[in-house]
Amino acid sequence: MSSEKSFAKGSAAPGPVPKGHIRLYSMRFCPFAQRTRLVLNAKGIKHDTVNIHLKDKPDWFLEKNPLGLVPTLETPAGEVIYESPIACEYLDEVYPEKKLLPSSPFGKAQQKMMLEQFSKVVPYFYKIPAGRNNGEDVSGLEAELKEKFSKLNEDLLKKKTKFFGGDSITMIDYMMWPWFERLEIFELKHCLDKTPELKKWTECMMKDPAVKATAHSVDTFKAFYKSYAEGNPNYDYGL
Amino acid sequence: MSSEKSFAKGSAAPGPVPKGHIRLYSMRFCPFAQRTRLVLNAKGIKHDTVNIHLKDKPDWFLEKNPLGLVPTLETPAGEVIYESPIACEYLDEVYPEKKLLPSSPFGKAQQKMMLEQFSKVVPYFYKIPAGRNNGEDVSGLEAELKEKFSKLNEDLLKKKTKFFGGDSITMIDYMMWPWFERLEIFELKHCLDKTPELKKWTECMMKDPAVKATAHSVDTFKAFYKSYAEGNPNYDYGL
Repeated sequence: MSSEKSFAKGSAAPGPVPKGHIRLYSMRFCPFAQRTRLVLNAKGIKHDTVNIHLKDKPDWFLEKNPLGLVPTLETPAGEVIYESPIACEYLDEVYPEKKLLPSSPFGKAQQKMMLEQFSKVVPYFYKIPAGRNNGEDVSGLEAELKEKFSKLNEDLLKKKTKFFGGDSITMIDYMMWPWFERLEIFELKHCLDKTPELKKWTECMMKDPAVKATAHSVDTFKAFYKSYAEGNPNYDYGL
Repeated sequence: MSSEKSFAKGSAAPGPVPKGHIRLYSMRFCPFAQRTRLVLNAKGIKHDTVNIHLKDKPDWFLEKNPLGLVPTLETPAGEVIYESPIACEYLDEVYPEKKLLPSSPFGKAQQKMMLEQFSKVVPYFYKIPAGRNNGEDVSGLEAELKEKFSKLNEDLLKKKTKFFGGDSITMIDYMMWPWFERLEIFELKHCLDKTPELKKWTECMMKDPAVKATAHSVDTFKAFYKSYAEGNPNYDYGL
């Protein structure tokens, strides 16, 4: 699309998805949508992006996906795919360039089991900042998060690899990354202090071209999350 | 295994998984484990079953899967796979006989999106009986469950197919079935009264050989769930 500005209720629907392209309905600051942006980018898939105003969704978007979720993919044939792990696996299957999931059934199962475990870490990235905002004591939650991080650290130590699926980036790394990118904004960076392997992993990740291409600066994130916390998220901040 | 009796803490570990077999760690009444039992059965996969006493798990089981979950699969090579959808997809990939997932990436994505939606229905099967046990008013929860059922009914109506993936049983049907088998025991059968297509689906499912092979009688279920509600689940009931 020519602009990254978000589409809100009442906006004209974008045209059909061009042949040979795939379309991503996204929100610039959404960590789940970022998973799909990372995969599209890493695999070099031709796509366009339609950002959605999540507080005021266009009717034409809800017609495509009644759940109103981002990320949502749309193909030129009008096929609609949502839920970030499903969308990312779909992309990896359809586009053979630079496979991100292992080809063996057990290798794939291992990545999915890791993702399932990581899905139990994700809520902490919301509960801790929300608790702090409400003036609650979040030290217990932080201790739990550190415990989860030390399990991830152990995992890397045992495997003796730079990334979670081996010595190069694979799907599981991209599935986990968006929340680590936000550690500083969520004031959770100190939770990495006793997990050197995991910290090294974040440093390796930051060198990846797809990670760089989908990143926002800390200042941009801060401004967005401020508007979000105030109940009036500015999805177009910085454009 | 020669016996279906559950293995508890202190029990001797079963021997290695025989070549050409796969092992399922299970619990006879667990709906998640039943998903895997359905797939093993439908595909005719040679396997043995080791039932686990979930309230008093053997150490050797926790060594294989520190999360202590059933279903867990183990291969002769010692590979361990858990989480029911991951285990079932693994089986479908490794054993080519009678494929249960579509071969197209979009077909697969559709089944996974349906499963993701169904995962939001599952908690009602626990919350409603638990609420009733506590003497709470569960009419609101029942209304929500009926709403979810009417969406599933609509889905079948739109597709004009007997099953959720077409006119024959596919993976998604087996993933959903275990909770529908328990509708009577959970006293939720009336929730199907206004969803004739979904009701017809349950009737078609009951004719399936794998469904029959993994079923328990209502009386057996009742006795198990009674012992479960009393805090002392009898995993070996009826053996």
